[in-house]
Amino acid sequence: MSAKRSGILFVMTGASGVGKDTIRQAALPDLDNLFFSISATTRARRPGEVHGKQYFFYDKAAFEALLREDALLEYAEYVGDYYGTPAAPVHEALASGQDVLLELELVGAREVKRRLPEAIMIFIAPPSLSELERRLRGRGTDSESRIQKRLARAREEIRAVKEFDYVVVNDTLSTAVRDFCSIIHAERARTKHLSARDIANFLREL
Amino acid sequence: MSAKRSGILFVMTGASGVGKDTIRQAALPDLDNLFFSISATTRARRPGEVHGKQYFFYDKAAFEALLREDALLEYAEYVGDYYGTPAAPVHEALASGQDVLLELELVGAREVKRRLPEAIMIFIAPPSLSELERRLRGRGTDSESRIQKRLARAREEIRAVKEFDYVVVNDTLSTAVRDFCSIIHAERARTKHLSARDIANFLREL
Repeated sequence: MSAKRSGILFVMTGASGVGKDTIRQAALPDLDNLFFSISATTRARRPGEVHGKQYFFYDKAAFEALLREDALLEYAEYVGDYYGTPAAPVHEALASGQDVLLELELVGAREVKRRLPEAIMIFIAPPSLSELERRLRGRGTDSESRIQKRLARAREEIRAVKEFDYVVVNDTLSTAVRDFCSIIHAERARTKHLSARDIANFLREL
Repeated sequence: MSAKRSGILFVMTGASGVGKDTIRQAALPDLDNLFFSISATTRARRPGEVHGKQYFFYDKAAFEALLREDALLEYAEYVGDYYGTPAAPVHEALASGQDVLLELELVGAREVKRRLPEAIMIFIAPPSLSELERRLRGRGTDSESRIQKRLARAREEIRAVKEFDYVVVNDTLSTAVRDFCSIIHAERARTKHLSARDIANFLREL
């Protein structure tokens, strides 16, 4: 029915190592009806990662074919690799009334906000840059030069915090997960997201 | 310090019998730093109610003295009684950085929104009017004519739902409490509520 509300688009952004994946994975069981978009990337697969689960892994030529077909909602180059969001599944989910969560780097987040201004922008912030550096080193997946690049990128992202609707500081994980889930639940309770059908239901008996 | 953020003002409104008190009491343990404003009223004290706890109970002359002193943030007459919000405690809490929750009838909610446009307006809706009627009768505190007045008032309030930022439908209590708490947590995570001091902390190391 056309009276059904469209899905709400949520975009989460935050520096590598800030805990985006951990927050999202801890939050998803509490959040029904949320479609998590899987990105396409050219970056190397890490041990345990599966095509179609963490990412769709493509080589550069295949990724550039997606670009030519305009099949990506956004894409960005980050530390030498492409990352992009397949457009069709996002549009289909939103049209069917399902909410969508995108996890994006700053450049991609800005592009989505430009194309879809109603997107709700959530910034995941570290308690401090020194704590972020400690977490990146603890992860043990990056070379020193890559860590330095990630920290430089983190500084740039934190400067952009005012472009976001919400900031979740990942100091204590349980509080960050609670705040992240709260943002989703609260946005769903916004009057402006009531559909024509919801309003009709409220008013039918009056 | 002047850099500290001001408190956020939340206003909750909903028909008598919709479960406002139940939601609030279930939610408060999950919500620290929230000042619940206690209203002044001329209505008769119900068994078990205590002056300064559920309400400040005044006779009509004393209440009208408060009005003359402009000591109320809003007031309304409802089913023959006055209800009003003492202004000073609210302003003091907000200035000290504490968030404030007001539970108000529609007329009072509108007056607070007019005076303090940054107030976050939360509407507690019944799943249906027939369910609301069932709950009002189940409460057993009101005469038939008072129940009819409350239902007429509820119809009027539901028509005003679009004036509110959020709608919490009290169908399942646990979901309503979760949504109510989520609204408080999410608003606290809004970028616009970051204080100058918060921003400075983020940027200090950059």
